Amino acid sequence: MIIPFHVTEMLRRVQRKFSTPDDKKRLQPRSDTHSPFRPVRSATRASVLRYWKRLAADVETQNALADEETLATAEKYSANIESFIGTVKMPIGLVGPLRINGVNASGDYAVPLATTEAALVASYARGALAASRAGGVSTAVLYEGVLRSPAFIFDGLYQAGQFVDWVVTNIDALKAAAEATTRYGKLVSLEPMIDNNIVFLLCRYTTGDAAGQNMVTIATHALCEHAAAHCPVAIKKWYVEGNFSGDKKASSLGTLTGRGRKVSASVTLPADVVESVLKTNVREMLDYGRVANLGSLLSGQLGAQAHYANGLAALYIATGQDAACVAESAVGFTRMESRGDDLFCSVTMPNILVGSIGGGTGLPSQSASLRVMGLDGPGNGAALAEVAAALCLCGEISIVAAMSAGHFTNAHEKLARRRGA
Amino acid sequence: MIIPFHVTEMLRRVQRKFSTPDDKKRLQPRSDTHSPFRPVRSATRASVLRYWKRLAADVETQNALADEETLATAEKYSANIESFIGTVKMPIGLVGPLRINGVNASGDYAVPLATTEAALVASYARGALAASRAGGVSTAVLYEGVLRSPAFIFDGLYQAGQFVDWVVTNIDALKAAAEATTRYGKLVSLEPMIDNNIVFLLCRYTTGDAAGQNMVTIATHALCEHAAAHCPVAIKKWYVEGNFSGDKKASSLGTLTGRGRKVSASVTLPADVVESVLKTNVREMLDYGRVANLGSLLSGQLGAQAHYANGLAALYIATGQDAACVAESAVGFTRMESRGDDLFCSVTMPNILVGSIGGGTGLPSQSASLRVMGLDGPGNGAALAEVAAALCLCGEISIVAAMSAGHFTNAHEKLARRRGA
Amino acid sequence: MIIPFHVTEMLRRVQRKFSTPDDKKRLQPRSDTHSPFRPVRSATRASVLRYWKRLAADVETQNALADEETLATAEKYSANIESFIGTVKMPIGLVGPLRINGVNASGDYAVPLATTEAALVASYARGALAASRAGGVSTAVLYEGVLRSPAFIFDGLYQAGQFVDWVVTNIDALKAAAEATTRYGKLVSLEPMIDNNIVFLLCRYTTGDAAGQNMVTIATHALCEHAAAHCPVAIKKWYVEGNFSGDKKASSLGTLTGRGRKVSASVTLPADVVESVLKTNVREMLDYGRVANLGSLLSGQLGAQAHYANGLAALYIATGQDAACVAESAVGFTRMESRGDDLFCSVTMPNILVGSIGGGTGLPSQSASLRVMGLDGPGNGAALAEVAAALCLCGEISIVAAMSAGHFTNAHEKLARRRGA
Amino acid sequence: MIIPFHVTEMLRRVQRKFSTPDDKKRLQPRSDTHSPFRPVRSATRASVLRYWKRLAADVETQNALADEETLATAEKYSANIESFIGTVKMPIGLVGPLRINGVNASGDYAVPLATTEAALVASYARGALAASRAGGVSTAVLYEGVLRSPAFIFDGLYQAGQFVDWVVTNIDALKAAAEATTRYGKLVSLEPMIDNNIVFLLCRYTTGDAAGQNMVTIATHALCEHAAAHCPVAIKKWYVEGNFSGDKKASSLGTLTGRGRKVSASVTLPADVVESVLKTNVREMLDYGRVANLGSLLSGQLGAQAHYANGLAALYIATGQDAACVAESAVGFTRMESRGDDLFCSVTMPNILVGSIGGGTGLPSQSASLRVMGLDGPGNGAALAEVAAALCLCGEISIVAAMSAGHFTNAHEKLARRRGA
Repeated sequence: MIIPFHVTEMLRRVQRKFSTPDDKKRLQPRSDTHSPFRPVRSATRASVLRYWKRLAADVETQNALADEETLATAEKYSANIESFIGTVKMPIGLVGPLRINGVNASGDYAVPLATTEAALVASYARGALAASRAGGVSTAVLYEGVLRSPAFIFDGLYQAGQFVDWVVTNIDALKAAAEATTRYGKLVSLEPMIDNNIVFLLCRYTTGDAAGQNMVTIATHALCEHAAAHCPVAIKKWYVEGNFSGDKKASSLGTLTGRGRKVSASVTLPADVVESVLKTNVREMLDYGRVANLGSLLSGQLGAQAHYANGLAALYIATGQDAACVAESAVGFTRMESRGDDLFCSVTMPNILVGSIGGGTGLPSQSASLRVMGLDGPGNGAALAEVAAALCLCGEISIVAAMSAGHFTNAHEKLARRRGA
Repeated sequence: MIIPFHVTEMLRRVQRKFSTPDDKKRLQPRSDTHSPFRPVRSATRASVLRYWKRLAADVETQNALADEETLATAEKYSANIESFIGTVKMPIGLVGPLRINGVNASGDYAVPLATTEAALVASYARGALAASRAGGVSTAVLYEGVLRSPAFIFDGLYQAGQFVDWVVTNIDALKAAAEATTRYGKLVSLEPMIDNNIVFLLCRYTTGDAAGQNMVTIATHALCEHAAAHCPVAIKKWYVEGNFSGDKKASSLGTLTGRGRKVSASVTLPADVVESVLKTNVREMLDYGRVANLGSLLSGQLGAQAHYANGLAALYIATGQDAACVAESAVGFTRMESRGDDLFCSVTMPNILVGSIGGGTGLPSQSASLRVMGLDGPGNGAALAEVAAALCLCGEISIVAAMSAGHFTNAHEKLARRRGA
Repeated sequence: MIIPFHVTEMLRRVQRKFSTPDDKKRLQPRSDTHSPFRPVRSATRASVLRYWKRLAADVETQNALADEETLATAEKYSANIESFIGTVKMPIGLVGPLRINGVNASGDYAVPLATTEAALVASYARGALAASRAGGVSTAVLYEGVLRSPAFIFDGLYQAGQFVDWVVTNIDALKAAAEATTRYGKLVSLEPMIDNNIVFLLCRYTTGDAAGQNMVTIATHALCEHAAAHCPVAIKKWYVEGNFSGDKKASSLGTLTGRGRKVSASVTLPADVVESVLKTNVREMLDYGRVANLGSLLSGQLGAQAHYANGLAALYIATGQDAACVAESAVGFTRMESRGDDLFCSVTMPNILVGSIGGGTGLPSQSASLRVMGLDGPGNGAALAEVAAALCLCGEISIVAAMSAGHFTNAHEKLARRRGA
Repeated sequence: MIIPFHVTEMLRRVQRKFSTPDDKKRLQPRSDTHSPFRPVRSATRASVLRYWKRLAADVETQNALADEETLATAEKYSANIESFIGTVKMPIGLVGPLRINGVNASGDYAVPLATTEAALVASYARGALAASRAGGVSTAVLYEGVLRSPAFIFDGLYQAGQFVDWVVTNIDALKAAAEATTRYGKLVSLEPMIDNNIVFLLCRYTTGDAAGQNMVTIATHALCEHAAAHCPVAIKKWYVEGNFSGDKKASSLGTLTGRGRKVSASVTLPADVVESVLKTNVREMLDYGRVANLGSLLSGQLGAQAHYANGLAALYIATGQDAACVAESAVGFTRMESRGDDLFCSVTMPNILVGSIGGGTGLPSQSASLRVMGLDGPGNGAALAEVAAALCLCGEISIVAAMSAGHFTNAHEKLARRRGA
């Protein structure tokens, strides 16, 4: 049979869902009454309880999300969410102290990770122990800049060219218009990309200590409005974002030029640390590293790494970052090489989007997580990015060690044992 | 100056960090005493409090994470995290009811989204309203299969070929070995990929109602052990995962063949719904859709979409899914086309990794979120995947509408207004 | 200045082209008389000369393309080109004999390479010498299958699903319809890919000794017609190729699953061969190999290799293959690893599209090139693919050696010296 | 059976090759005598004949490659090839005159295409006729710059940073060193990319009328030597190319930022031209265009287009360009959109690598092809690039028309009819 088995198997399952004549209507639109939830912008105890009344859930369910503490502090969440009904409680595990020798982060950091995946915290902790024993992780922010990429539509190629000419000539005014909207954002690069009658402007901003996604949107909107108001070339239409910036998704652009902060982190693990802490040896880790690199290439990853997403998601959630940015942040390049008898390990991550202010960083428990690291508030954005990269390095070290030694499955089996599979 | 400005600007900033001779040692390993946190597997009130004693945080910080409710239920988290110190509280907003006409999901769903990003819930709610007014989202799981890709290393190409021959001949025994480890997992496809002396086996499993990442690891480990024990060809080394499966990262493999569940969801929005609910019109949305598609292509996305990651991260966190899987799930293909005067919209997402059992789904607040949707426990894995895709469709509709109408910036500006930028 | 210098520099140059008011019309359509060349399908001396009369070129130009030999044999080219006006003469250099120990190719091969790039033949010859001194290149075709991917459009997802169900049920008839059009083509796999209301069928064929691009088009057309005639589900439209197969372009699909023949080739170079033939050493080659691999990853190649395209283009042109297929063939994975003191080198190339029959292989000089290798005519398709991979391996060895030793620039400088730069 | 059929089918075929015990040695190195061809740098009639004596081919074979004309002019090829044994004759078909309204190319161009693939010339000619009837192709070079990306290796991240600092400070001297090697090459951009201890310098040059690959290698070599001689930071090793530039391969870097010349070309086809020349209609072409775009995305192309490689390979070969560059040139973005009742078509191709001087452009028949277009010699590089893009636009128009009308298969079937399949 030249049709793959899993295709026929899937069909068999679908067929069971369509056994009666009525089933054929299963996918069709329905016109019976639909009553949407009423949106609420400013949450209060009362607004939360109104939703629960409508939901008609059992008490246990309601209390699990809308507990007394959450109800009492409902107002605090209003700048971060709409139609608020409660909070989900994500457990936090502690990793470290992770020793970091960075341009911006310097010291031994207690790192809080929020996850529901057994073995994750234990694995990162093991990597952190190895790295710290080796003297700590060297790290530096190499590059900085959050992108917005507005698109401008013209009649044709000629007008697109004229527009670019106008932009270049008027760059100072455009920059001023953008920066007038923000105290912290600075437009540090603007590069036009022309596709015939469409011009994308790649606007790259530094954003101070904030992740800065909203900041750059507002600034770019102002830049576009300035262009629309002053440019003599007829603009048929403009959009503040042409879906080019890589916002919230893995892209070649982000992998190549970075979005947010590009950070490199490295450590050289002495052979004895590899053996005592990681229960494997340098050669075994290098051997697996080569295979993993080949797997990355063959499967068409953007970048080549093992599981940055695990550490990033856990750190982003714990500290009030935008968890959706994991989609763009979890790309980069892990390297492992011999240095004499020892093992050099590095990660270079071009898309770390974190802030020590803004977003969810000011919410009570998220802010507490930042305080545990000593990285809350102004002045800590770059250091936080270095911690993120150093953390991911620890995760790479740990998983490569586990894979090389054949321990990966056991670790997961044991730590998730209470749940069953 | 042929060096880009942002490079010189960055250098200027780094130089300030290296102004004194001592600064030069900033990146070097340090050998002062390092005392790691002691790992704790089974959390208790006492174990949590011990960590906080060591952290020496202020009371407010400690209480924000290790509140009384968390302390009282510390044991419940032990199968999901190590070195537990508390919980982070992520606010949940309510979207819907979202009308879904799916092969597996059928009805009007109250969808809880956990996020700290202002405007996200409001935006998805708007899309959900439009889709529901249009009769609801048609959706179907098209494909199913979680991958593990063990790697086997041989002396050379000849032995690699002999091994593949042996695998094909012994496929029934290998399948039996894998499936003996799990009640739900079924090996539905095994495809060898040879790179000279290295053979990756792409093992694809259905995993019942669980996301199944641990399940397939354990099953594949057993498969590998069976091969290692019985295959007459000398295996130099094997690894349970050759970093080929796309686990926790965006990859071409996942984009092409899917990992987890591949789901398609669509709705045709009548012109009047576009105008009344979305405050734009069909032509404007199509116009922007083309530009956004071009932006996707030019920036080298895997797939072409706007912001699946937002909806997925929020749903995954609310319902106890693995948030790190957003990295692999947030790829796919959004289409918008005219159907007469109306607007056809679809998303096809090849990598949705969700379960209604396992992972964090059994934790108190996460389980409550699933109950709000009526999708907790056995029998609901496929339906949950269809909800995820339908939700992402709503997000795509809403953002394309906002961009096309020029409302995107304002919406974000207003809803995050209390925070400042 | 935040605009990159090269952008402003480019603008400066464009501006010079638009200095007069008339220049503004430069890009506009023109309506003056246009008299197209008359198409000619069956070339003759007379038809060629008619074109030259119209072209009104000088004698030297005409004779360089329409030389006497070409005129005398014009008819021979009629099945390979339309509107024939002459031949371009591409110089061929000889590489080898390249020792190959393959599943299909076995022996010492004189390899003719057509190129106008100085140093190319010398570089491949050097690699071939090293590989042959090491005992020759081991190689095997691992996989075979040329893809066509017709697309079928339906009203919606439900109908798309029904169609797939019908295809699976009627696969034998579809296969028969396809194979009825060809003596050699066999449909060995058919996999449906659904994107909501659109179904792509990935049809994979073995094509005997031909590259087979036309063969699979004709077979797939018949398959589609059979489906259109017999399937009870209403097909709104079908296309014989949905631009999914990777035909004539680099794609993730091709890189992952292959199109044409997937071939792996390897050799272990003794340390002394590296030193005596390649004038470098194993460690230096490994060091550069790691950097080159990183460069591949960072720049977002499909695969990771140095310059397959050079060898492939030269071999394809010399032997009458489709040179445009270089776009899809020139992807794959080069590996270099230490084996004790020696150097293991391999290439795995998933998209080699060659035939020993069909296409341009029967033309006089192209056929002669195949005869030089002893690979003309039926029975030699797989061997030719193995030669192609072995050749590319030689190219990789040579360039990595040259880069590692710092000889790359000099080699090119010397061999192109007569031309100036 | 969960193993794909084509895998088992392939194995069956391989097994036949290993039926005897001796077959097992098939892939092993052989040590019998190997006598390499002696390299020849300066070809003469005698040197060519010496090779043929060694090859011991039949007279017909020898004459097909080493014909009298080739023997008589052997010396002319010496700057373009080593170990010269003859010439392969590739047939050329004529397309046009193609009307082009470009910034650099302006007029009606007779375009010579070298190919052995039936239907290619006819198809491009049809597209050219449609475009010319519509008033011609508007086109412009948007961007220019050939990349070299040397890599510098350091002890660590700190030294890498110091090096970048030195480069920025000494950029004028580095630029001078590079430009001292060439009359035409100008270094217009230098961007450092750091991966921990490795620094790639993306050097972008304009190269006058040459494609310029050797030119930028030599210039970059000088730049590196200057850095190595003067930089106070210890460089452990440097390589003139870190495999980052995208030279001879499709890469995200090239797709995003371009290598060589980035050219956009467009035409708006009146509805009646679509009907009369292309035998289809605007709506049908748009419908197929959307499907083809989806196919591009789903299969993971770099860019989205149908078959640039066909036109590019044919033009590159006819005019003495580097045919291997098709691998990098054949990426880009084709768009088709409605403009009222008419059809807007554009291609934007970021990697066109052509020259009107240098490479193979000075060889007799290649130079003749350039003269046929009036684009030989100095001053024509940019115009040639615009012709290349305009040509590819014609190819896209023609194939989309054929696919949309269902004529694709027939066209190929008829024109290759004399060969059989």
